[in-house]
Amino acid sequence: MPSYTAPTKDLQFVLHDVLKVTESQTPGYDELEPDFTSAILDEAGKLTSEVLAPLNAVGDKEGCRLENGVVYTPKGFKEAFEKVKEGGWPGLDMPEQYGGQNMPYVMGTAVGEMFSAANQAFTMYQGLTHGAASAILAHGTDAQKDTYLPKMVSCEWTGTMNLTEPHCGTDLGLMRTKAAPQDDGSYKISGQKIFISSGEHDMADNIIHLVLAKIEGGPEGIKGVSLFIVPKFMVNEDGSLGERNGVSVGSIEEKMGIHGNSTCVMNYDGATGYLLGTEHKGMRAMFTMMNEARVGVGMQGLAQADVAYQNAVIYANDRLQGRAVTGAEFPDKPADPLIVHPDIRRSLMDQKSFVEAARAFILWGATMIDAAHRADDKDADGLVSLLTPVIKGFLTDQGYDMTVKAQQVYGGHGYIEEWGMSQFTRDARIAQIYEGANGVQALDLVGRKLAQDGGKHVMAFFDLIKGFIKDNAGQDAEFDAAFLDPLKAASKDLQSAGMYFMQNGMKNPNHALAGSNDFMHMFGHVCLGLMWAKMGLAAKEALKNGSGDAAFYETKLATGRYYMARQLPATALHLTRIQSGADTVMALEAANF
Amino acid sequence: MPSYTAPTKDLQFVLHDVLKVTESQTPGYDELEPDFTSAILDEAGKLTSEVLAPLNAVGDKEGCRLENGVVYTPKGFKEAFEKVKEGGWPGLDMPEQYGGQNMPYVMGTAVGEMFSAANQAFTMYQGLTHGAASAILAHGTDAQKDTYLPKMVSCEWTGTMNLTEPHCGTDLGLMRTKAAPQDDGSYKISGQKIFISSGEHDMADNIIHLVLAKIEGGPEGIKGVSLFIVPKFMVNEDGSLGERNGVSVGSIEEKMGIHGNSTCVMNYDGATGYLLGTEHKGMRAMFTMMNEARVGVGMQGLAQADVAYQNAVIYANDRLQGRAVTGAEFPDKPADPLIVHPDIRRSLMDQKSFVEAARAFILWGATMIDAAHRADDKDADGLVSLLTPVIKGFLTDQGYDMTVKAQQVYGGHGYIEEWGMSQFTRDARIAQIYEGANGVQALDLVGRKLAQDGGKHVMAFFDLIKGFIKDNAGQDAEFDAAFLDPLKAASKDLQSAGMYFMQNGMKNPNHALAGSNDFMHMFGHVCLGLMWAKMGLAAKEALKNGSGDAAFYETKLATGRYYMARQLPATALHLTRIQSGADTVMALEAANF
Repeated sequence: MPSYTAPTKDLQFVLHDVLKVTESQTPGYDELEPDFTSAILDEAGKLTSEVLAPLNAVGDKEGCRLENGVVYTPKGFKEAFEKVKEGGWPGLDMPEQYGGQNMPYVMGTAVGEMFSAANQAFTMYQGLTHGAASAILAHGTDAQKDTYLPKMVSCEWTGTMNLTEPHCGTDLGLMRTKAAPQDDGSYKISGQKIFISSGEHDMADNIIHLVLAKIEGGPEGIKGVSLFIVPKFMVNEDGSLGERNGVSVGSIEEKMGIHGNSTCVMNYDGATGYLLGTEHKGMRAMFTMMNEARVGVGMQGLAQADVAYQNAVIYANDRLQGRAVTGAEFPDKPADPLIVHPDIRRSLMDQKSFVEAARAFILWGATMIDAAHRADDKDADGLVSLLTPVIKGFLTDQGYDMTVKAQQVYGGHGYIEEWGMSQFTRDARIAQIYEGANGVQALDLVGRKLAQDGGKHVMAFFDLIKGFIKDNAGQDAEFDAAFLDPLKAASKDLQSAGMYFMQNGMKNPNHALAGSNDFMHMFGHVCLGLMWAKMGLAAKEALKNGSGDAAFYETKLATGRYYMARQLPATALHLTRIQSGADTVMALEAANF
Repeated sequence: MPSYTAPTKDLQFVLHDVLKVTESQTPGYDELEPDFTSAILDEAGKLTSEVLAPLNAVGDKEGCRLENGVVYTPKGFKEAFEKVKEGGWPGLDMPEQYGGQNMPYVMGTAVGEMFSAANQAFTMYQGLTHGAASAILAHGTDAQKDTYLPKMVSCEWTGTMNLTEPHCGTDLGLMRTKAAPQDDGSYKISGQKIFISSGEHDMADNIIHLVLAKIEGGPEGIKGVSLFIVPKFMVNEDGSLGERNGVSVGSIEEKMGIHGNSTCVMNYDGATGYLLGTEHKGMRAMFTMMNEARVGVGMQGLAQADVAYQNAVIYANDRLQGRAVTGAEFPDKPADPLIVHPDIRRSLMDQKSFVEAARAFILWGATMIDAAHRADDKDADGLVSLLTPVIKGFLTDQGYDMTVKAQQVYGGHGYIEEWGMSQFTRDARIAQIYEGANGVQALDLVGRKLAQDGGKHVMAFFDLIKGFIKDNAGQDAEFDAAFLDPLKAASKDLQSAGMYFMQNGMKNPNHALAGSNDFMHMFGHVCLGLMWAKMGLAAKEALKNGSGDAAFYETKLATGRYYMARQLPATALHLTRIQSGADTVMALEAANF
């Protein structure tokens, strides 16, 4: 059975040594003193490693069960959910007005990583609730907020997001679910939604579905889509629960992973719904929280990679197999542990150097979301909007690959469910798909975000890297060679790719879109390269000051050197592919595939 | 439910247009006329697509069941196995003397691809039997051959290979299973073996286990390992079955995939075994057939990639979602099919360009195995021995990635088991692990094969590429630029990597082994690049002659151009990583991971 150790120390390093959160001007950040964040992370670490992680395999094996319209979650989930609620974790970064603790999103993200790593399927029940509550917070009337938010912030009631239908996912303009206006201002919602995470279950008194539907007689396509609040149980004036609404679960999907989460087909048969936000502006309302939601999914990629990596390290140290090629390291044992072998190290270093940089990248993104929301910082909003598809697409693609590498360390045992490594890959796989499949992320990046506000944000990104290199070069030749030079080269590759798109995408947009996946990946590498350079600098600083654990900082530098030498150069390959254009990609007739 | 179409036309193209098998001097190849091979492939195609493919999802869902020591295979497997036996497929490339058809291994491989693609878990029952029979053929006494082979060639009896124990897989020197010599020349075998594919089941009258064990009092470690024949039922003098031997199934492993195959824990409690081959030379006996077995696993990587790709193409043509960025292609439909989108094409072209080159690579390898076995061609034996870890490791790593890409085309539906795409990835995953995990393949390649016979075979490989380029360059500038120049560049990268190993691996072998995985992958790319250049040439030739289906050959050239432009340049990244050496890979203390 795998274990999970919360990466508290590393999170503290990123928050304080790298991002220096307390020095930020963002409202609320002044409270994030190291002792304070440490106490929160320790508490969350305890809950996640001791309560949620042991239920991860249980959820996978048992799955959810539908009986007479009722969905039963796996054994132990209900009790664990109570503990999560008791701890106030769902409301950590929600407004105090509705029972939350009003902490910055960056803290929700740091804690969220632990929750996801320990038990992704379980954490989705509160994750979807958080998303739905955020949408109500942003777009609801005061009455709606008062009715739903206190219960959702505490997770007494949970939430869902209903977008996909059997025939459409990405292209929601094709949607068929209808909303018929009623005299009392409400709507009757009819249609079928699929892939609804946490759609029905036995852990909450009520479930608040947010449902996209088309108001009858409205505009065609995506411009006629509105967002509705559809509670499972009607809510009376006094807040008590009334009768059951016309929404029911059709079936539970059998999935590759995240078995502990009930992914449901939901049927709306004239269910009563209340408009959330403005008529026909449903997509905008749904997408308001998109940056957060997608950063949250990127975090799942990192989280599964981390827990898989942790267990790969344990196995690599435990399993005796073969001898170090440079001579036995443990001659008194029948064989050396796997970790002596260079190819095992290569795999572990791939994983470690990804996980730590991804963690920094996500928390950096979260600080920008905070700056945008709490300080109305337009530049931060623009930059995080640019980086969001990278965080989501790159980190989940890479995160998945890392779980596969971790599984591979186990050899045959990695393929046996009992060891739990298979579950990490199966659970991680969904993050590449939901909240916009990664191809859609790449399209969003290249087709929309690059040119947004006249390309202002991508220019700001390049300026940021240039400035960083300029500010820090020339002081330490070894650091320059190991960190800054590779970052410069990779950043130049990324700029060349952007240039290629500008020069060729105008006459034929396929020349840009054929390279969108490669661009997203090279962008991701440059971001992680930047994170490593920043972390390397912070580690050097700490070593110079003689503060803390020297081995920790030395390890940080060594891990960074690995990334810069072995992973960052991937930008050159991506550039080569991009510059080969669309001709070979689009050459075939559809019939000749 | 996914479907499978046997790639008969493409197999014929590789056999005849590319490899020109009938022109080969290898005994038996003169019979492989196009009409003859076509008839066989058509017949196999029918069986695999109509009988085996529909059982693939059944096997996955139902799995195998152990009740009172008896293993039940999924519904329909038994009947299908009867059909396979009736068709004589298991003995296709086995000697006529034992009931086989004595066809070359290359035909067994071409047919085997279809079997694996249609139903990998099912095909393993006969695959393991083939492996065990081959070992008996190579090392058995005449009496052993007469006793076992006729029944195994027909698959009335099936076979297994017992190597792994709970505490050792790669490092078999740690093995604990014991063989106690008996007065009658037999042995009593005692111990536990795990991960035994097809270890116990209800589809054969007898199961012949080949078991590695240590004869008591023999040398320590790997030099004291011998190979034994341990039948499930004792075989009487007259060939009839006697009493049950002391071997039993302990449990069926719960695996990530290949659920239709019974992967068993096998317990040997003083079971009667017969030495196969020479005392203490068990590893050598087991590894005689290693090239074939590993080529067979490489083929599984290709096979799962192909069937996944086929279904991704179907879905990409069916699913309407969004509009082509260059303008609606099907304005009369509510949306365009996925296949109009450049990033979907990029994914499909990745898959197609891999599958077709991998097919050629494997069949080329199989012709070398035939040349080695049938014509005692030492050069062919040396070259295929060099390429075997590449075929196994590279093709299964890439094959797995391709199944993931195919699954991704389905978006959310790819994650739902009902659609079958998840099974392809879960089944493909095992091929990276068994028959020597891919890290071990890379180690074999760099640590052993490169230097074998004084580096003669790798030099021969480079000469072959050089000769090929020299023979064909300068006749068609477009072909040179699209095919030969990239091949030359990639081959140069590979040579530079080999040079780096020679110059640095001597003083510190870690400098070579830290790059072993990258070397295996760049070697694989060069091989597929060579295959594309050969296939491109054959397609050009056919187009010039005006023979056959012009669209087929044009498509071949276009697919090759894609590979050369988008995939082959990966060699440069692998070279960069290799040349960064072992320092960053080995920098950390084990405790600091």
